[in-house]
Amino acid sequence: MEPTVTPASATTDPAAGPRALAHPALAEIRIEGVLHALADPVRLRIVRQLADTTDHLACSTFDLPVSKSTTTHHFRVLRESGVIHQTYRGTAKVSGLRTEDLDALFPGLLATVLAASDRQAERLAAGLPTPG
Amino acid sequence: MEPTVTPASATTDPAAGPRALAHPALAEIRIEGVLHALADPVRLRIVRQLADTTDHLACSTFDLPVSKSTTTHHFRVLRESGVIHQTYRGTAKVSGLRTEDLDALFPGLLATVLAASDRQAERLAAGLPTPG
Repeated sequence: MEPTVTPASATTDPAAGPRALAHPALAEIRIEGVLHALADPVRLRIVRQLADTTDHLACSTFDLPVSKSTTTHHFRVLRESGVIHQTYRGTAKVSGLRTEDLDALFPGLLATVLAASDRQAERLAAGLPTPG
Repeated sequence: MEPTVTPASATTDPAAGPRALAHPALAEIRIEGVLHALADPVRLRIVRQLADTTDHLACSTFDLPVSKSTTTHHFRVLRESGVIHQTYRGTAKVSGLRTEDLDALFPGLLATVLAASDRQAERLAAGLPTPG
């Protein structure tokens, strides 16, 4: 079963114009959707890179091993689940983590997932034995 | 992109006989697979129920709003991702959380996800306003 994603039309402010991007309101963000968004290696890589800065980053900043259309898909999943905020800066779409929103809803979740992901990346890179 | 799941044949001990169930070894458990397993409302419900006991529970213990075959699928996803351990007790399959393994690999992850899930369930049940 896939987590329910709020339709784009429900949360876009019409006054923001046709180029505005749909984001779930705080009350619409669900733990299942956030976990689903984080459960992909490419999306987790995007989130880890965004976590290293307070700035919004253009999609072109990310060097990802997937096509441009797949990249766009991954950013949309992250935005529609409430993990990232996206906006236009000129002609470029820029993205930032919704850290405060996620921390308000699910305290510690994002930090714990990022730490787990970092540990795994270090372990795999070093070929270290697993604990236990 | 779906997380890679270790094929059943790779991790089953042949000496354990044909009824043994495949489980990933500790070194094979991946954060992406664990998050994917937890990103479903039914599977999260199973995990929350298992977290309330140290005992292994039979699949029939769970009152889930899905068919028996879907239930079996959800338990398999949880087992193949490394979230639960399953074994036969007589003719019944029983399941328990791999809490120690998950805590060794990803400290705090399971507890944080369970707490986030509990908070959301309480908020939705009470119709409480969201924070912020």
